Amino acid sequence: MSDYPKKVVIVGGVAGGASCAARLRRLDERAEITLVDRGPHVSFANCGLPYYVGGVIEKEQSLLIADAALFHDRFRIAVKTHTEVVSIDREKCEVELRDVKTGDTRRQSYDALVLSPGASPVRPPLAGIDLPGIFTLRGIPDSREIKSWIQARQARRAVIVGGGFIGLEMAENLTHLGLKVTVVEMLDQVMPPFDPEMAAYVADHLRQRGVTLALGDGVAGFKKNADGSLVVETKSGAEHGADLVILSIGVRPETSLAKAAGLELGPRGGIKVDDQMRTSDPRIWAVGDAVEVRDWITGQDALIPLAGPANRQGRIAADVICGRDSRFRGVQGTAICGVMGLMAASTGASEKSLKRAGLTDYEKIYLHPGSHAAYYPGAKRMHLKLLFRRSDGRILGAQAVGEDGVDKRIDVIAMAMQMQGTVYDLEEAELCYAPQFGGAKDPVNFAGMIAADVRRDDMPLVHWNEPVTEHTVFLDVRDPDEVVAENVQGSVNIPLKDLRDKIATLPPQGDIRVYCAVGQRGYLATRLLKQRGIRARNISGGMAMRRVVT
Amino acid sequence: MSDYPKKVVIVGGVAGGASCAARLRRLDERAEITLVDRGPHVSFANCGLPYYVGGVIEKEQSLLIADAALFHDRFRIAVKTHTEVVSIDREKCEVELRDVKTGDTRRQSYDALVLSPGASPVRPPLAGIDLPGIFTLRGIPDSREIKSWIQARQARRAVIVGGGFIGLEMAENLTHLGLKVTVVEMLDQVMPPFDPEMAAYVADHLRQRGVTLALGDGVAGFKKNADGSLVVETKSGAEHGADLVILSIGVRPETSLAKAAGLELGPRGGIKVDDQMRTSDPRIWAVGDAVEVRDWITGQDALIPLAGPANRQGRIAADVICGRDSRFRGVQGTAICGVMGLMAASTGASEKSLKRAGLTDYEKIYLHPGSHAAYYPGAKRMHLKLLFRRSDGRILGAQAVGEDGVDKRIDVIAMAMQMQGTVYDLEEAELCYAPQFGGAKDPVNFAGMIAADVRRDDMPLVHWNEPVTEHTVFLDVRDPDEVVAENVQGSVNIPLKDLRDKIATLPPQGDIRVYCAVGQRGYLATRLLKQRGIRARNISGGMAMRRVVT
Repeated sequence: MSDYPKKVVIVGGVAGGASCAARLRRLDERAEITLVDRGPHVSFANCGLPYYVGGVIEKEQSLLIADAALFHDRFRIAVKTHTEVVSIDREKCEVELRDVKTGDTRRQSYDALVLSPGASPVRPPLAGIDLPGIFTLRGIPDSREIKSWIQARQARRAVIVGGGFIGLEMAENLTHLGLKVTVVEMLDQVMPPFDPEMAAYVADHLRQRGVTLALGDGVAGFKKNADGSLVVETKSGAEHGADLVILSIGVRPETSLAKAAGLELGPRGGIKVDDQMRTSDPRIWAVGDAVEVRDWITGQDALIPLAGPANRQGRIAADVICGRDSRFRGVQGTAICGVMGLMAASTGASEKSLKRAGLTDYEKIYLHPGSHAAYYPGAKRMHLKLLFRRSDGRILGAQAVGEDGVDKRIDVIAMAMQMQGTVYDLEEAELCYAPQFGGAKDPVNFAGMIAADVRRDDMPLVHWNEPVTEHTVFLDVRDPDEVVAENVQGSVNIPLKDLRDKIATLPPQGDIRVYCAVGQRGYLATRLLKQRGIRARNISGGMAMRRVVT
Repeated sequence: MSDYPKKVVIVGGVAGGASCAARLRRLDERAEITLVDRGPHVSFANCGLPYYVGGVIEKEQSLLIADAALFHDRFRIAVKTHTEVVSIDREKCEVELRDVKTGDTRRQSYDALVLSPGASPVRPPLAGIDLPGIFTLRGIPDSREIKSWIQARQARRAVIVGGGFIGLEMAENLTHLGLKVTVVEMLDQVMPPFDPEMAAYVADHLRQRGVTLALGDGVAGFKKNADGSLVVETKSGAEHGADLVILSIGVRPETSLAKAAGLELGPRGGIKVDDQMRTSDPRIWAVGDAVEVRDWITGQDALIPLAGPANRQGRIAADVICGRDSRFRGVQGTAICGVMGLMAASTGASEKSLKRAGLTDYEKIYLHPGSHAAYYPGAKRMHLKLLFRRSDGRILGAQAVGEDGVDKRIDVIAMAMQMQGTVYDLEEAELCYAPQFGGAKDPVNFAGMIAADVRRDDMPLVHWNEPVTEHTVFLDVRDPDEVVAENVQGSVNIPLKDLRDKIATLPPQGDIRVYCAVGQRGYLATRLLKQRGIRARNISGGMAMRRVVT
């Protein structure tokens, strides 16, 4: 850049904005940096808000990662809270600032402007949406209001509208406070970024912990009873009583300022930026939840409201403003949600997002490994889905649900994906093994091995929901006691150990679909049959997938 | 291979051997597979033995992953336990088998022979080494003997000779049983694969939990008292009383059979194999702890007695025997050890191993991030060391010690390393973040950022143990209350917030070494000084490293 900027104004002081400000100072002692935020705080831990509401995080102070004093002391950054940027004069390179409390306005010039306005919770124009007791959760003041409302009203029943990450975190925390929680979700699954069969494990877990799920049902409106309590009316005609309602339907990028300034928006409605986080105006950068980024797995434009990418984008914007050639690699959407003792994590594409992107060159496998060696006490079974490119084995995405070790496996796969890894790389990964922490074959290795077996055509695969034909035979290779416990109607049971002796009873050219409990014996049976000239496919994930794949 | 083998004999039925046998059957229904083991078990969980001794794993049965019946039922593999392979007749392609119980011998021919004899605990020829009560731990019978000895003698004091992984696992488990444990280790650190400053955290932890460490002292011999108890005499002249002694000095590859058959050994004394696990005889393969492998980080030949690589090697040998072109990628030595609530994990090269290999193109950084976001309760600080190539940023190795989340970070770095990742890849890694599980900047990201800052020369680095000169100034940028708690003699204290105002007090061309508690404020101070033309370097890891780097 020819005109090295001296004055930088950053709009929005959380995550991306705060990271950008601190990085700017580290790179340029001379710059005049102003960090502006509409709210009372900068750099607060918005991912902690549900836990603050739930009392798990006890003190509001804990959420304040850095305040104006720290920004001044360490960075000589001027923080202006309660200050809104009303407009951008791109010609003059000035912003108009308004003090939210006094209404006073003033103009401030910039050499570089960074927009980090975030995203705001969606509040659909439904009947009764503005009734008292209907909350969204974005900042510390919201959390405080929800807490006082619960206390003042002695609230006992909550309805959460939206079963995404924040909705489920709120479900956990309100349950923790002793409230009876109902989640109303328009889709017929919780956790929309997950594929439905994986989200089903989460739904089961929620129900087991006493949360009522109203899936596949949208909210029609809200009513207030005489006693001040609320009724949530749904499109199906159901009514859910509530002492408070949390709206967690999703967030929408805050683009009004950018739009008014004539900055280009992307097809998904976020601020459009290049891989250096530069908007259509070369003096204006944008980062965080308000920008549209490239999902580098599917190649699609995406809105990904995640703190990790926001922080990295802030750093990159600062680098570029200071004349460095940093570039954002795009996002793969690695995310995790804790749900009442369960972890649900994912990275990369889901099957849904692959389909949405029109990508068909993929295969999926399911497995249910233990979080650590089975012989050491306390191992928990996790459910893992791996998506990979059929043509070359490249990893496309993974989802996992379980009580332990889920974050680790998704992180390892996320790292492999970033490095353009294949299923063979997972197969050969050399990971920590001691019996408390993993297995000699880690779940990541197993995922790689199974996927590699599929790719090498060592294990032809089929899924429960593939339409049956007149030639379909479901071959159950479990032991008889397992079959008694849970059977598939019309299936043939030949325990694996007897399969070699009874092989003559099977049709060589049928459509044999082999299964066991989780897929391992099914794999052995499939190998056996395949080598003996019998066409057979293994049902990925075995009986453990049957209930969730419909 | 022209003569496709029909008869495969596998010598050694644990880990590599068992994996090889099962994989062989999956690839070839027709092969005649014989799995021979000298001991009473095949496929048992030897990594669980310390926990079986300690009673954490209660039932011996839990350790038996697969038995002869399962190998027959599922795989039609003939298992011969209590059977030793006495010799190999490579000319005739026959092995001589001896029944350990009866002494009967017979010959068995093979088309392919796989050696998986493992490694045996070192038992040095010291005075009194054969006294009753001195044990090594290799198989289930050893564990059983140790358990009965402790019970029968009401043992109260144990001496463990060797402070490696198994030694420390035994220290944990014997302490768990109520014994007073002393660890005698010849090196002046525990956990020899770790660098001493990282092992120091483990040593501290052990001492805090009541384990006595006698480091830098070798065993001279053993004596027996009149009451049957033992005395361990060390080279320094110390005497440690013990009701039992565990020798865990290390293991030696079992190569006697291979050597007698004239197979080539490697420079480290293990069986030499190519990357298809083939020995110098094209009909003989070898896998597991007995073989020498390539450490692909240092390029050195290495003996790596780990279960993960052994399993993968077994698979690869099976693949190659069945005519497939699989290749072993070499090892990077990823390992973890649980030590009384602490995890110590590492992957890749240590600084020691880089030095041993004569590699000097490296840099190291230290950091002490929390296991998850500080604002969520229960975060534990971990200690992390990252080694990378100075010339191009390639990750060379990592070590971490802490109570939580250590396995995850080392696994992620291990995966990045396998993909030839750089510190920039760690910087940009997109990992799971919710406050219970990680941070918006994960410890892995921090490690990458710090290392990248060093490589870009944004943060010149220095370590505590670098010799001081007459121009050296130790600049402490912590706050006064922290300085009062722990001070470095002769240091200058200018809290970070005052540094800009007091900059004139610092010599521009001195050797300023900046530090804070963990390195972060030191980084900010270094950036500040550097930009203002003052030569300064940050002491990596700050005060938290001072005690351990001497």
